[in-house]
Amino acid sequence: MNVFVLGGGVTKFGELWEIGPRKLVKEAVGYALESSSVDISEIDALYVGNMLSGILGNQENLGALFADELGMKNAAAFKIEGACASGGLAFHNAYNAVKAGVYKTCLVIGVEKMTDHKPEEITKALMAAASEDEREAGLTFPGLYAIMARAYCKKYKIAEKELASVSVESHYHASFNSKAQFPFEIRLDKVMTSPYVADPLKLLECSPVSDGAAAVIISSFDGRKKGIVEVCSSEVASDSLGLSGRKSLTSIPASITAAEKAYKKANVKPRDIDVAEVHDCFSIALVLALEDLGFFEKGSTLSEIAKGKIRLGSGKPVVNPSGGLKACGHPIGATGVKQIAEISDQLAGCAGKRQVKNAKIGLTHNVGGSGAVSVVNIFKKV
Amino acid sequence: MNVFVLGGGVTKFGELWEIGPRKLVKEAVGYALESSSVDISEIDALYVGNMLSGILGNQENLGALFADELGMKNAAAFKIEGACASGGLAFHNAYNAVKAGVYKTCLVIGVEKMTDHKPEEITKALMAAASEDEREAGLTFPGLYAIMARAYCKKYKIAEKELASVSVESHYHASFNSKAQFPFEIRLDKVMTSPYVADPLKLLECSPVSDGAAAVIISSFDGRKKGIVEVCSSEVASDSLGLSGRKSLTSIPASITAAEKAYKKANVKPRDIDVAEVHDCFSIALVLALEDLGFFEKGSTLSEIAKGKIRLGSGKPVVNPSGGLKACGHPIGATGVKQIAEISDQLAGCAGKRQVKNAKIGLTHNVGGSGAVSVVNIFKKV
Repeated sequence: MNVFVLGGGVTKFGELWEIGPRKLVKEAVGYALESSSVDISEIDALYVGNMLSGILGNQENLGALFADELGMKNAAAFKIEGACASGGLAFHNAYNAVKAGVYKTCLVIGVEKMTDHKPEEITKALMAAASEDEREAGLTFPGLYAIMARAYCKKYKIAEKELASVSVESHYHASFNSKAQFPFEIRLDKVMTSPYVADPLKLLECSPVSDGAAAVIISSFDGRKKGIVEVCSSEVASDSLGLSGRKSLTSIPASITAAEKAYKKANVKPRDIDVAEVHDCFSIALVLALEDLGFFEKGSTLSEIAKGKIRLGSGKPVVNPSGGLKACGHPIGATGVKQIAEISDQLAGCAGKRQVKNAKIGLTHNVGGSGAVSVVNIFKKV
Repeated sequence: MNVFVLGGGVTKFGELWEIGPRKLVKEAVGYALESSSVDISEIDALYVGNMLSGILGNQENLGALFADELGMKNAAAFKIEGACASGGLAFHNAYNAVKAGVYKTCLVIGVEKMTDHKPEEITKALMAAASEDEREAGLTFPGLYAIMARAYCKKYKIAEKELASVSVESHYHASFNSKAQFPFEIRLDKVMTSPYVADPLKLLECSPVSDGAAAVIISSFDGRKKGIVEVCSSEVASDSLGLSGRKSLTSIPASITAAEKAYKKANVKPRDIDVAEVHDCFSIALVLALEDLGFFEKGSTLSEIAKGKIRLGSGKPVVNPSGGLKACGHPIGATGVKQIAEISDQLAGCAGKRQVKNAKIGLTHNVGGSGAVSVVNIFKKV
């Protein structure tokens, strides 16, 4: 069974203190239904990507909760969790069900409400994605990625300034995205003079704490509607939860595995990808992703980025036209779904000011934890 | 693609203070691998059913965590949550993936570690499966099911003693199951004189707080191994999270919908089912389940039970040969997977002292919350 993305939608990402998760979800789903020309009654199953509702909000059973809120009485409903990859994993499971012919049309939503809580509560909750050893050692996610940044910069002789330049690219793209948490450009000196969160990572190299929701609707082609964005492959791979069990600190092996499988199934090469949304929770994460996904040679990414190779107008692929996790924001469970909504818009040619010209093949890449699980999806315009 | 249960395994259920979730999972998976004659390296994907690890243990990302612990490097891995139906929902998603041909062989595990926490913490955590209104009203799950019990007993003129008799059946079956939390018989007068938890439900009508894990391995038939238990259907339906949004208090509409779909897809009738594992979190839940699943007429269940109609040796179907949630125990995420392991053993003819003779068609029924989501699976011996 072929599977198509019929449409998608995203709320504003940011510190949305005045708006609750139910309203966020309704807004995102409203956009997705509208862009898909699908009625809610046509949806057979709901897949919710979310990480923190239990820990921060003492609310679980989100599948049934949102099915009820959205008026999807009787629909099958699930919550899928895999840390920051929850959204991508929810999509993967929905894709499998449509591919199997079990459901014809599925709604995938990602949602997270984070900013209502104290910073130390959020940090503690996020560390639920890490290993027990890492928590006991007092590590945080900036700390874990800083370890990878140090290893990478040492191995490939990268200056701190080069790594910091990544955020400038993300903000440039976000300046065309009114739904981004930070829809404005920043200068390299601002990144360089921002305070260290975990040396060598500075504040403006870290994705923010965000609220937001995203939704996409997928379906097997049904004769009535013209599917224009097809899902070519969706692949997931896992690795050790903790960094100490990983076979590399200068790549994310789960991403390499998932990407290799996804390219093979889709029968495309990295050079065929026109536009990609990748998991840049930290500056170093973007660099590793671009190498793990096969876009650039190991160690060469930062010099390629300096040449405009991922930028709207000159890049191939254009990377993170939404602004990525860094500048668009990172409401954990929503991120993986937002990536798909963005790529779907890009391939459908309705990405507005940030449209990548002639985008025909797109990719999303969503990582959980410090690389414990990775999801790579490939899409094409048909 | 046809899907088969190759084998399954269950740990002892109970207050297992000396054993952690990792060890529980390893034990259950060990049994499942052995009974399936499958090597861990042959597993393509892992589906984990769990509800409370985040809230009670501040540990998420259980898919990757257990894939790593089990030596399944690189396997796709997911956590699926839907309150007490988490295990059944994890199975449903694994089934869809195998049916789609995305994965050939999947491991489904359910696990919960509950008893290390204070009773009030557990009660609060479990209420994450209920609605905000219900939490604010001070309701608990015994309270919610007591509302249903009152409505049912009033409508069908049922005496408290009749309802209480249900637990006697569960314990009778558990007396043949050494892995049950309460592997012994109880007398009706003991149930009747046990303290009220939520009138009319008494302590011995409520499933306990439990630790435990269960695992099953499913696969598309691959020519090398002879699948003997086939999955005929797996259906999920949802409803309002809170009881006040439900269209009936004397049935669980989500179970009716899921069951109707499951019977239709499997092309069997309720009378064809030889053995069933149903979600008896409270005495009233068993009664509602047997009617929602079409085994007995509305209002007649307790008189049918009194005639031995669900009992090993005389029942058709024999219901809850494991002892059910009441007597075998109810480690939330493990329950739905344990049900499948039990039915698989019954259909494979290896259920030992509690073997249902000539069992050819089996059913599992797993409910989340007070009926917000329900999973019904049907299996046959091939």
